Amino acid sequence: MSPAKWTEPVLRGHAIDWENKFCARCSLMTSSAIREILKVTQRPEIISFAGGLPAPEIFPIKEVEEACVQVLRTAGQQALQYTITEGFLPLRQELAVKMHKYGVEAEAENIFPTNGSQQALDLIGRIFIDPGDVIVTDSPTYVGALQAFAAYEPRIECLPLDDDGMQIDHLEDVLKRQKVRFIYVLPNFHNPAGVTLSLERRIALVKIAAKYGVPLIEDDPYGELRFEGEDLPAIMTLHKENTIYMSTFSKILAPGLRLGWVVGPQALISKLVQAKQATDLHTSTFIQMIVHDVMRRGILTDHSKLIRKVYGERCHVMTDAMEEHFPEGVKWTKPQGGLFLWVTAPEQVNTRDLLKKAIDHKVAFVPGTYFFPHGGGLNTMRLNFSNAQPDQIREGIKRLGATLKEAMA
Amino acid sequence: MSPAKWTEPVLRGHAIDWENKFCARCSLMTSSAIREILKVTQRPEIISFAGGLPAPEIFPIKEVEEACVQVLRTAGQQALQYTITEGFLPLRQELAVKMHKYGVEAEAENIFPTNGSQQALDLIGRIFIDPGDVIVTDSPTYVGALQAFAAYEPRIECLPLDDDGMQIDHLEDVLKRQKVRFIYVLPNFHNPAGVTLSLERRIALVKIAAKYGVPLIEDDPYGELRFEGEDLPAIMTLHKENTIYMSTFSKILAPGLRLGWVVGPQALISKLVQAKQATDLHTSTFIQMIVHDVMRRGILTDHSKLIRKVYGERCHVMTDAMEEHFPEGVKWTKPQGGLFLWVTAPEQVNTRDLLKKAIDHKVAFVPGTYFFPHGGGLNTMRLNFSNAQPDQIREGIKRLGATLKEAMA
Repeated sequence: MSPAKWTEPVLRGHAIDWENKFCARCSLMTSSAIREILKVTQRPEIISFAGGLPAPEIFPIKEVEEACVQVLRTAGQQALQYTITEGFLPLRQELAVKMHKYGVEAEAENIFPTNGSQQALDLIGRIFIDPGDVIVTDSPTYVGALQAFAAYEPRIECLPLDDDGMQIDHLEDVLKRQKVRFIYVLPNFHNPAGVTLSLERRIALVKIAAKYGVPLIEDDPYGELRFEGEDLPAIMTLHKENTIYMSTFSKILAPGLRLGWVVGPQALISKLVQAKQATDLHTSTFIQMIVHDVMRRGILTDHSKLIRKVYGERCHVMTDAMEEHFPEGVKWTKPQGGLFLWVTAPEQVNTRDLLKKAIDHKVAFVPGTYFFPHGGGLNTMRLNFSNAQPDQIREGIKRLGATLKEAMA
Repeated sequence: MSPAKWTEPVLRGHAIDWENKFCARCSLMTSSAIREILKVTQRPEIISFAGGLPAPEIFPIKEVEEACVQVLRTAGQQALQYTITEGFLPLRQELAVKMHKYGVEAEAENIFPTNGSQQALDLIGRIFIDPGDVIVTDSPTYVGALQAFAAYEPRIECLPLDDDGMQIDHLEDVLKRQKVRFIYVLPNFHNPAGVTLSLERRIALVKIAAKYGVPLIEDDPYGELRFEGEDLPAIMTLHKENTIYMSTFSKILAPGLRLGWVVGPQALISKLVQAKQATDLHTSTFIQMIVHDVMRRGILTDHSKLIRKVYGERCHVMTDAMEEHFPEGVKWTKPQGGLFLWVTAPEQVNTRDLLKKAIDHKVAFVPGTYFFPHGGGLNTMRLNFSNAQPDQIREGIKRLGATLKEAMA
């Protein structure tokens, strides 16, 4: 390279008004309000319950290093080369075994690795939603799903949540009225609400969806993170022909790897493969082989036990501190797993205003309203209990309690 | 997990007609014809010039292993945790330095890491193309770009290629007639054609694009792989305000990592960040940190010298063998870099039929017609010279020459 002789531009300036160059779809894209909050709350003096990060102290760093060395020494050329969009076959086989243990009948051909489950949500939006098509979600629901689907311009019909998860009393009315592309469900330890869909509702949901021929999207990032109570069957075990299941290594291994997976009927997987081929050719061969090596050595079983123990402790530290420090009239969910719980303050408390005061008190959360597809929930908030350590949780809840008392005084 | 008690499905069967559940957009998605060819040509007895794979024998496997160990031992928690969509800042800073050496003025804030440059193409389609919008490409052009853009339903206006790259004589007519979203250009060692856009045309292109206010998309995966002749300035050095540049580590380090990058004005990068956030949150933290470590240690400079040497030798072995074995009337481009060359047989030869015969002769290529957005080029083919070793290249070209002689007899 000898750039010196040709660095002189032909044209300089002519500044472009880029906003004017983007297509109409871009008006639907905004940076997530939550991501903006997270930037503010990263100041080191703030105890933040706002994010959704796993506890980094327990990442199995040494085991990942061993996997890297193993993969590169035994199959380095393969690990660094292009691979097929369908994914690394031995990983898909390990995932099929894992799904069997979880109660889901699946073969390698039913399994598709993606860049985290966020990519699965995007690809599902891409193959199911034309502009104006109707989808059903609960409310509140996972904002990442709302963001992924929004690019494809759906109309969203919402079902409210209670302590047993999505309320399905009015689902048939919704399905009778119009063609619905899919029903999106977070059955276990819901983000943001922390609640779990009861067995009765799972069974009823599967029956209604089948009656109207509407696919169920089962988003299950936290299913293995139950620290209390009894496991419930995955929706896919109840009617696998009509369910698309997805999960991720982000919560049971490490989110920085960006690896998730979809389980579904083969016709669906083939269409997702076509969609993904156009978006990024394939998921990193190296990352797929690292995770395969970690799985093969049985590390995830012990590691998920450790995660459940740590998150269970942190959840209890948080709810105990809330009992002690939160004023009367404030309620919260009691999760049996996952990373989040959901707080409901009295009607007069607006949690967006409360957040400003909380930041003055050096504590942060996400106002609940951001999780409602059509607004509402102004007096609610989401708290994460996986990322802060127990002492910080106690201190942070004390600060949040003081903030709430001031706001309610 | 104790799945035994609840593996009994509520419903079995009710097989779903999935094709009937997908949205209208899906009718535009097909598996790449080239990927289908690649499956056939993977049989070990076939010498394949069909793929576009780098030479795996020279991947810097040991250096990648050292980077993995270094990253995990010094910053393991960070490497395995979520990061911001904008990308790992030290990587963006290294890329800014790299771009400066390449003649492009850019700061970290102008640089955006993606999952290979395929993802950059998808995100560019997403932010620029509404259904029916017009874009300009050359013809033949990169099929991955056609596939990425197709999901957003553009109309494509094509400009023909010659030995100096995209012919721009009629570009103004095209831009006068209609609103064009962008012009997509592969300036260096074009895939599939192997040709390079001349300096005169680069300058003229920049002026016309600026006159009509149409952004230029400069796709430059091979710019550093020149093994002959003089480097030409990147289009972005000629008018950086109106150019979006993209490149990838797939050809200068390893495609299995899936890491590319976009360089552009900040308003554009911000919009790409929003688009990517919805599709997969962020590119693997670990992969970004590995590549940063490799760059920081200056490994890429020597490594790209090695790649140029190996690919230059292989290209010459191929063209020498073609001189010897191809019948009169067959022409080919003489690339000064990159991975591909382009063969034009006499009019009466249909290379799709020829491929079947070539496979009988145990040699494979990609028929050129697949690279034409609106068809044509029935007597052309693309040959890759980076992946096969010199002896295989000699033998494969001998076989292909025999096939051509039979077809032309």
